[in-house]
Order: sequence, then structure tokens, then C-alpha cells
Amino acid sequence: MTTPNVPELVPPQRLLLGPGPSMVHPRVLRAMSTPLLGHLDPKFLEIMNEVQAQLRAVFCTQNRFTIAVSGTGSAGMEAALVNVIEPGDTVLVVVGGVFGMRMTDIVARAGGRCVKLDIPWGETIDPGRIEDALKKEGKVKAVALVHAETSTGAQQPIDGLGKLCHQHGALLVVDTVTSLGGVPVEVDAWEADAVYSGTQKCLSCPPGLAPLTLSDRALEAVKARKTKVQSWYLDAGMVADYWAEGKRVYHHTAPISMVYALRESLRIVLEEGLEARFARHRRHSAAFMAGVAALGCAPQAQEGRRLPSLNCIQVPSGVDEAAVRKYLLAEHSIEIGGGLGPLAGKVWRIGLMGESARQENVLAVLAALEQGLAKQGKGPKLGAACAAALEYYGRA
Amino acid sequence: MTTPNVPELVPPQRLLLGPGPSMVHPRVLRAMSTPLLGHLDPKFLEIMNEVQAQLRAVFCTQNRFTIAVSGTGSAGMEAALVNVIEPGDTVLVVVGGVFGMRMTDIVARAGGRCVKLDIPWGETIDPGRIEDALKKEGKVKAVALVHAETSTGAQQPIDGLGKLCHQHGALLVVDTVTSLGGVPVEVDAWEADAVYSGTQKCLSCPPGLAPLTLSDRALEAVKARKTKVQSWYLDAGMVADYWAEGKRVYHHTAPISMVYALRESLRIVLEEGLEARFARHRRHSAAFMAGVAALGCAPQAQEGRRLPSLNCIQVPSGVDEAAVRKYLLAEHSIEIGGGLGPLAGKVWRIGLMGESARQENVLAVLAALEQGLAKQGKGPKLGAACAAALEYYGRA
Repeated sequence: MTTPNVPELVPPQRLLLGPGPSMVHPRVLRAMSTPLLGHLDPKFLEIMNEVQAQLRAVFCTQNRFTIAVSGTGSAGMEAALVNVIEPGDTVLVVVGGVFGMRMTDIVARAGGRCVKLDIPWGETIDPGRIEDALKKEGKVKAVALVHAETSTGAQQPIDGLGKLCHQHGALLVVDTVTSLGGVPVEVDAWEADAVYSGTQKCLSCPPGLAPLTLSDRALEAVKARKTKVQSWYLDAGMVADYWAEGKRVYHHTAPISMVYALRESLRIVLEEGLEARFARHRRHSAAFMAGVAALGCAPQAQEGRRLPSLNCIQVPSGVDEAAVRKYLLAEHSIEIGGGLGPLAGKVWRIGLMGESARQENVLAVLAALEQGLAKQGKGPKLGAACAAALEYYGRA
Repeated sequence: MTTPNVPELVPPQRLLLGPGPSMVHPRVLRAMSTPLLGHLDPKFLEIMNEVQAQLRAVFCTQNRFTIAVSGTGSAGMEAALVNVIEPGDTVLVVVGGVFGMRMTDIVARAGGRCVKLDIPWGETIDPGRIEDALKKEGKVKAVALVHAETSTGAQQPIDGLGKLCHQHGALLVVDTVTSLGGVPVEVDAWEADAVYSGTQKCLSCPPGLAPLTLSDRALEAVKARKTKVQSWYLDAGMVADYWAEGKRVYHHTAPISMVYALRESLRIVLEEGLEARFARHRRHSAAFMAGVAALGCAPQAQEGRRLPSLNCIQVPSGVDEAAVRKYLLAEHSIEIGGGLGPLAGKVWRIGLMGESARQENVLAVLAALEQGLAKQGKGPKLGAACAAALEYYGRA
């Protein structure tokens, strides 16, 4: 067996303005480099309690079961779904992008009968359609939908949906991967039952954990299961006993350094204050979109439903979009995202999430986009997009 | 919603000599605090290639599918099992401790028919029993067993088992969570088909990733499945496309900082050299066990099958074992492990894994154990255990 020659780790410095990870604050990087406690150390159990309290604050919930799943955002999605779904259960899934599609895949693997409610990518669903489906489909176990669709930049209003679901005996499952910490997420006000997120978006923490909160109603559904949860690793009952104060039954080994990182990133979120943070996300997204209009790029998401944290914009016709992204990375060390699925090659996705949502970054990416388009003989006179953004900042 | 008051992160410094996490080298902590690349950045893809090459070297395999699962060791166990097992498949599981038991739970959740081969906790199985079961049970999909049983400190010889399984058309699944990097793990020589580990044991990396390697035979079984893998997150086919050079199909977001940490910890492992590292683990375990004999503690694992990385010793009769562990943590800031399952209250588990396997640590924990026993009026004259260990070091 030959020993691979792996040199010192010296990655280039990037400005991360893609769909995630977002920029990470130096305080979070420092927290992550703290020497480890054992995962059953009384001092680490205190840290787990603190993280739960912090997560309740950002989720706006009193839910006892509010934890960080030991995996990335997709593990959070799987945990939320496989715990409440049993084979044969009917689940309504709203599909308006890649992450709605992913939900349907997971529902099917859990043995659920998946009823898809399709909407055009970039649009959101009218609650009336959900109500009609609930009436039509008979007993529905859960309604699952995405609050912030990372593949289209659309933001789905959730208000009132919990009540609607409960009137029909269904649970409400919500994906807040790209909204938590950047856009209001009101778990209790929504009456949502299973809500998950990821750490590497608006929380500006490295990827590796998935915040998850379950209502008592969801926990009752878990308790009433006739079959075991298909995943041992993500079994909410066992994970709850591991996180529960006073219990701490050994289940798996929590990713200790990631918990340190999440704790520090949540401290930063709560120091800034949720309202101030949401306002900052709105402000820089609006400035960016003002600049983007000058570039001739239309937003992908429908008017009034644009997600400030993830700005999905259409590539102007005749532009080689991959070449522009390559130019941004090679010449400016800026990462932005391309399109996923049917939107591949048609959109750019610019994340202004958490630490990334700053005026200097808005100007940096607009300038680089202008230059990238200019190299293809496209776009406005250089400086127009930055000027439009600054004009917005001057007004706002 | 009240904002929780969470102070600066200042955990106490611990000497980690429990069943994991083990001590982490400062170079690994530093690597983890490196600013992030995006997970689809070409430079990060190079890093993924490097980690795969490093993992092949420590697993002693040429397997193309050699990756780090985005979860802790238990996620590795679940990934190894749920990818090869389909509902109705017969699986032989050797159970001689908590982690063998966990395998049976996961096999059942995957719909497998689990045939348990029980052995006393601390002992290992004779290949003849596996052969008899293979002959008796008809078509067996897989044989699953634990190389290094963390709950008992027993090390199961694996040589020849792959060939035996293949003669009967079965796959061999091996848990090397507490052996990889500390004890020889020879995936290709064993002809093992699915082998997984954790990062927080002999690799001395924080928990959060699970090294996993699949043979081509295992991949064929995955490809030949009639049903989808029950877990979307752990689906080996999708994960393979994410890790495959030249493909890199977006699946989930890898925990980037943890990959940095694993890369650095594997650099340290390979700089030391596997043979030297194994010898170091044997040496310090032997010295520790010499000291432990002076304390009047017998090893839990049978003679000739003792795992050097995890030393499971019986608590002398009449000793309040929890009080001793509490004393070690409070007065010496040393973490050791208690017993799990039927061994709770009966054994201590002292991990001398990776960076933890050092003479100073052996002496530190022996001295503290002597003092802890003395507080209960037990144990030898103070200094006897350390003297016995030093006597061993002098001889060895």
C-alpha cells in the first residue's frame, strides 16, 4: 500500500456567496478549535442544554424537543420525515424545487403514499390548494413543504398552515434550511410540528449539524407508531433521551466540535438580535437585487415571494453562465451557485446569508458579475450595477 | 421568547482516556479552524480525493468506494448495513457486546431476518460457528461482526472470514470503530466487503465522520437491489456519485471543517506509520495492564484477545466504581468510561487511543486510580501500579 503524499492544508481564501456554506465568523472557527470534552462529560451536557435553549430562541418555540441532529441539513429532513411517517401513511408534499422533490423521495423510502402538489419553480402555493387536497385525500398523516426553497429563491408563507393541518388531523413538516436565522421562522406561531434546518446557511456555522424541533403533537405521533423508525441513527425517541436533561442515555457520540461551533454561531445570532438580523438580510438583498436589475437579470422567484437570503436570478440570454462563475472563482475568489435540476444553466444563485450579508460583499459580487458579463460583451456599462445598489443603500 | 444567557465557551481541559473521543492533536484543531471552501469548490474536490487516498491507506484497501460518511460512527454502521440488506434478507450477526446488539437492531429496522450468534461478553467467536450457521441458514446475505468491541475490549480475529463468507455467497460486514488506526485493519487481506469506523477513536480526530469502504462485491449487491435503500441520506449509490472523481453529483453538503480535521489527523497517522502506531498502542496498553494487575483488576476480555486501544477492566469487589470515576474527573480532570449494558457498574473502560496512548497518560491514570481506590480503603500501597507499569516499560 503506498502512502499518499498529502501536503499541508492551505486552501485559497474564498468569499462564499453561493447557496452555502456562507462565511463563518472567526469566533466560530476559534470555538471549533477548542480542545474537546467527552460527550457525556457533565460540562458538555451543560453545553447541550445551552444549545437547546439557543435553538428554541431562534426557532421561536417552546418545544421541549429542540436539538441538533448529528448530520447535515438533509439528515434533518430525513429525521423529520421518517419519524412521523409509517408505511402506508399518506403525505402531501408541495414540490416547487429540488428540496420539495427530495422530500418526496424520502417519503417514498419511508413507505409513505406521497401525494405531490406541484407548483411552478419559483412560485409558492395557495393554502386553498392544500385545504382541497386535505379534504380529498382522506386521512393524511402529514403535509410537508419548504419554507425557503434554495433551488429557486422562493419563500413560502407558512402562517395558518399548522391550524389548517391540525383541523384535518395532519402534522405540518417545514424545511427552514435556508431561512432559519435570516428570515422569520415562527415555529409556535405557525403551529408547525416538525421543523428542521442546516447550520451552514443563515446561521453562518460550518455544515455538520441539523437543528430540529418537534412539537408535542409530533412526539405523540412518534410514540404512537406501530413500527420502529426505519433509521436507528435518526430515531427521535432515542435521540430525545440522549439530549433530555437528567436522562442523557448514550445513543451515539455527538460531533462535539460542531456543537461548539453551533453554540458560538447562535451566540452571535442572538447578540445581533433576530429582528436586526432579518432587517440586515432584507436590506442587502434589496440592494443586490437593485444592482442585478441593472445587469438585466430577472429574479426567478415570483414578486412578493423573494427570499432575501438566497437570491436566484435568471442568466441573461446568450450568456455562458458557467464561464461567468468560473471567472468569479478564478479571478475574484468569489463562489456563487448555478442552477439545479431543470434550472441548471438558466439561473445563478447568490447567497447573502448570515455573515455573507454585508454591503462590501454585495458590491464585490455585483462588480465581478459586471466584469464577467463584459468579458462576453454583455451587460451594462461597467459600474452601473454597483451604482444601482449604492443608490438603494442611499435611499434605504 | 427570552434570549438565553450563554457565556463564552471555556470548557475545562480534560485528559480523555474514555472510550472516545480521544485526545486531538493541536494540528487537527488548527486545521478545523481553517476558513471554509464551498463543498463543490474544485479545491475542495481535491481535498476529498486526498482524504479518500488517505483512508485507503489506513484501511489497507484498493476499494474505489472509500469515503467518509457525513455522520458519526453509528451512521457508518447504519450506512454499511442498510445499503446491503433488503427486506427479507438473512443476516448473521455476532453479538458479544453493545455494538453487536446495535447491529441486530439496525438489521431488523432494515427488514432483515437477523440470526444472532451470541458469545459471552469479552470473548470472540470461533470461525467454525460462523461456518456452521452459514451452512444451516441457507441463503445468507451478510455476516456482520465487530472487530473491536468497545463495550468489552475484545478483539475479534477477522482473517479468513471474507473467504468463508464468499464461499457461501454472503458478504462480510466489519465494525472497526475502535480499531482503525490503532490495531491492524486489513480490508483487502480480510476480503471484507463493508467496513466502517469512527474518527474519534484511534484516528484522534473529533467525532463527526464515519470512514466507510465498500468492496466491488458490496457495490454489486447495492446495484442489484430490487428496493431503494431505506435511507436517502446514507444511500451509497448517491454518496458514491458525490465522492467520485469526475462526477461530484450534488447530494448533501459535506461537513467541510470535519473533512479538514480528518485530513490532518490522517496525515499524522501516516507520518507516524501504521506499524509504528500499532506498536505504540500495544506498548502502552501492555504497560497499563501491568499496572492494572497491581490494582487487582482483571481484564474483561479473554486472554489473547485483548484490544490494546480500549482496555476494559473489572472493578475490584466492594468498590464504588462511579465514585472513582467522579473522583478522577473532579480531582484529576481525567475521563475514563464506565460499563455499558450488562457490564454497567462492573467494569471501567480506559481508552489509550491515538494521541491518548502515551506513557505520561498511562502513569496519570494509574496514579489517579490508585488514589481513588485508596480513598475507599482499597487497592495496593500507593505507587505500586505506576511501579509495575514502569517496570514493564523498562523491560519492553
